[in-house]
Amino acid sequence: MGKEFVKEITAMDEDFAQWYTDVVKKADLVDYSSVRGSMIIRPYGYALWENIKDELDRRIKETGHENVYMPLFIPESLLQKEKDHIEGFAPEVAWVTHGGEEELQERLCVRPTSEVLFGEHYKNIIHSYRDLPKLYNQWANVVRWEKTTRPFLRTLEFLWQEGHTCHATDEEALEETVKMLNVYAEICENILAIPVIKGQKTEKEKFAGAKFTYTIESLMHDGKALQSGTSHHLGDGFAKAFGIQFTDQEGKLQYVQQTSWGFTTRIIGAMIMVHGDDRGLVIPPKAAPTQVMIVPIAQHKDGVLDYAYELKEKLSKMARVGIDASDKKPGWKFNEYEMKGVPLRLEVGPKDIEKGQVILARRDTGEKITVAASELEQKLPGILEDIQHSLFEKAKNHREEKTYQAIEFNELKEIFAAKTGFVKAMWCGDRSCEDRIKEETGATSRCIPFDAESIAKTCVCCGKDAQQLVYWAKAY
Amino acid sequence: MGKEFVKEITAMDEDFAQWYTDVVKKADLVDYSSVRGSMIIRPYGYALWENIKDELDRRIKETGHENVYMPLFIPESLLQKEKDHIEGFAPEVAWVTHGGEEELQERLCVRPTSEVLFGEHYKNIIHSYRDLPKLYNQWANVVRWEKTTRPFLRTLEFLWQEGHTCHATDEEALEETVKMLNVYAEICENILAIPVIKGQKTEKEKFAGAKFTYTIESLMHDGKALQSGTSHHLGDGFAKAFGIQFTDQEGKLQYVQQTSWGFTTRIIGAMIMVHGDDRGLVIPPKAAPTQVMIVPIAQHKDGVLDYAYELKEKLSKMARVGIDASDKKPGWKFNEYEMKGVPLRLEVGPKDIEKGQVILARRDTGEKITVAASELEQKLPGILEDIQHSLFEKAKNHREEKTYQAIEFNELKEIFAAKTGFVKAMWCGDRSCEDRIKEETGATSRCIPFDAESIAKTCVCCGKDAQQLVYWAKAY
Repeated sequence: MGKEFVKEITAMDEDFAQWYTDVVKKADLVDYSSVRGSMIIRPYGYALWENIKDELDRRIKETGHENVYMPLFIPESLLQKEKDHIEGFAPEVAWVTHGGEEELQERLCVRPTSEVLFGEHYKNIIHSYRDLPKLYNQWANVVRWEKTTRPFLRTLEFLWQEGHTCHATDEEALEETVKMLNVYAEICENILAIPVIKGQKTEKEKFAGAKFTYTIESLMHDGKALQSGTSHHLGDGFAKAFGIQFTDQEGKLQYVQQTSWGFTTRIIGAMIMVHGDDRGLVIPPKAAPTQVMIVPIAQHKDGVLDYAYELKEKLSKMARVGIDASDKKPGWKFNEYEMKGVPLRLEVGPKDIEKGQVILARRDTGEKITVAASELEQKLPGILEDIQHSLFEKAKNHREEKTYQAIEFNELKEIFAAKTGFVKAMWCGDRSCEDRIKEETGATSRCIPFDAESIAKTCVCCGKDAQQLVYWAKAY
Repeated sequence: MGKEFVKEITAMDEDFAQWYTDVVKKADLVDYSSVRGSMIIRPYGYALWENIKDELDRRIKETGHENVYMPLFIPESLLQKEKDHIEGFAPEVAWVTHGGEEELQERLCVRPTSEVLFGEHYKNIIHSYRDLPKLYNQWANVVRWEKTTRPFLRTLEFLWQEGHTCHATDEEALEETVKMLNVYAEICENILAIPVIKGQKTEKEKFAGAKFTYTIESLMHDGKALQSGTSHHLGDGFAKAFGIQFTDQEGKLQYVQQTSWGFTTRIIGAMIMVHGDDRGLVIPPKAAPTQVMIVPIAQHKDGVLDYAYELKEKLSKMARVGIDASDKKPGWKFNEYEMKGVPLRLEVGPKDIEKGQVILARRDTGEKITVAASELEQKLPGILEDIQHSLFEKAKNHREEKTYQAIEFNELKEIFAAKTGFVKAMWCGDRSCEDRIKEETGATSRCIPFDAESIAKTCVCCGKDAQQLVYWAKAY
């Protein structure tokens, strides 16, 4: 039976997109509804999001930010206040035109992001340097009218947090932009075991209305990149559009310097595509809703279930432990929790009890470890830690294997014709080269990495003087 | 200066509605925006909501429920599937008609509640008795197109949780309906110190599409009632509309029995109107974002600030403690934290340090207590507990003072002409009497209480045989 269950998902190498769609469904992360492009996040998927959210929310609060809640709707005239912003977002917002039976005098858009709402509010509450900095964050749903959608990766509606801050100086805003990018990178690397490249977006790829955008970029199993979190220095563009001014210590009127930064349910898509395999999900222990699933063997035999429940209680002090005492066959249970990516399966049956041992099966490596029951509490945290660490190292090695470099344009084209992955190549800084690279290879500039190297003196595209090294990739 | 600060809010007895509006603004709970009828929940208001949410979420999980997330939008055809439901909600939903530049083929409403989305999902995932019960909950924003709005009490958009469950039998669904009403009552009474009456809504007042609705009703300072949480037994109405069926243990196809229940940001309005006074908010300790605010006196003097920060660190192990070391005058700080309803103010200055003592000022009674610094950690939890308890008792006494009873219609009319509060009166069960009472007194039926008494044999309105005792009141 087990084999058949496994077969229900497409092999990664056969069709990665189909594998992804199969996994999110079979692992009970999402379901579809009659609402086009939206997803139902099922209990297992939502528990995963809650873990990520809790970790991130704690860090957002520890860095001095406060949570607020802004309206869902934005009047059209308010959205239009910042020119670049409306240009970037107008094509992809949902419009409310009727309330009850009545037609509205002014259309309301469903927020695609909340810069303009924060802008209006900040104008009301900021007057003096004493009111600064303002460090606000919001957990919310947002809507972007996407044509083609995929669960987590690109959906009409998604969940996220959006930070919005105001500062007295450019330096402080810059420091904030970097700080929050680092928080995102830390969550990705330490909680989700996803290695990231930190860097700056090009002018073309930056956020609509920002001075510049910092990003973390990760590489999926199939070699495509995924933008995993962005942090924007907004400069004083929104401040000028909304008139957010303060009197500084010398009594002079100044515009505030702003930032905004967002992290979304999209990261669950990244986690799936970085760690998953042909048997389904693989969830890093720190993010896993269930870290250890106990599967009793021959559970109808005297004492087995009692023993298993005692184990559950004991281990629950140090880990998130589940038990499956349903009447399904153990083989079915093994497959189910493998599909769901539970980091460790704990098997215990009459023979194990007799021998004073349990069997631990690692989801990441398939390895089975026999542990003396008396040593279990002592050893469990280390094993979970090792899984977490191994997943990160494996993902990092995979990324390094799939990171190439190109000096000449032909090289770049050849690499993208034959392979997927990051390609490091020098760039002159001209939009036209960026456009041409995209046209001829399908790859976009992912970021200008912070720890820049120089691998050549000339632009990979035009051959003129190079300004920066850029990571290029085909991306989600 | 302090006096002036206090004067900024209207006295309760002068104009209760204006007092309310002043308090929510001056206590920094909310701000307004250009989005009609919506509110910005500011950090202090949101921290309060987070405390309530955390307490409720824990209880929802402890009672075996799982969190999920459903789409924001509902296609018009889906909303129309259950007839009573659409009739109840159609007049008050917001309609999305355009996505980006394109006009939609079918309008989408912004969810006013999610029964139909859960209905569609449950049809997909429930097949056998083994799939039951399904105990789901969602934390979300919902929109109802209200004409007149007031922060927390009635807003275009509000935050809530909505539970949606499916059961094999009517008894199980009934048990669930009661269980969750009790969870709401417990949160109101133990966390928010708001005493509630539990009971059943009349047919007229029940939820659109429900078999019946249970409610908890509380009484505000001004004697008006507020519906504080509802739990609906949906019967099999939605199950039939959506075809949610399961094969029972005998192999027979059955419709599921459903419940839904909701608790919203409205409860913050209740908390304000039950406990607040002419100096502003009064927050019960268990809900308070800050339970103890330390205000250093003569803080420029050597050692005062260090001492105050040490106190903060020590007390933070047992309470949520803040410190205001800004350069504002102590009187200003006193007023600010009184306005914000912080349960305890801790004053400490050079003289107190010399004497080895601190001053605690209770927000609820104004009482000042001198406590030896060495006994502070031991005494603090008891004092907070006492404030929590006193607030509940005070609110309960207030409600009892404002609970009347009427046997004859004239009595009922006289009471509502002269007073506000709950009036207990018998009812025949006819909608026409309920309508007439509303017409002639402005009061609505709040609930048929669970612990029913019989105070007369005839209906207060028509004089025919009485069926039930009803709590009547003018309500928010």
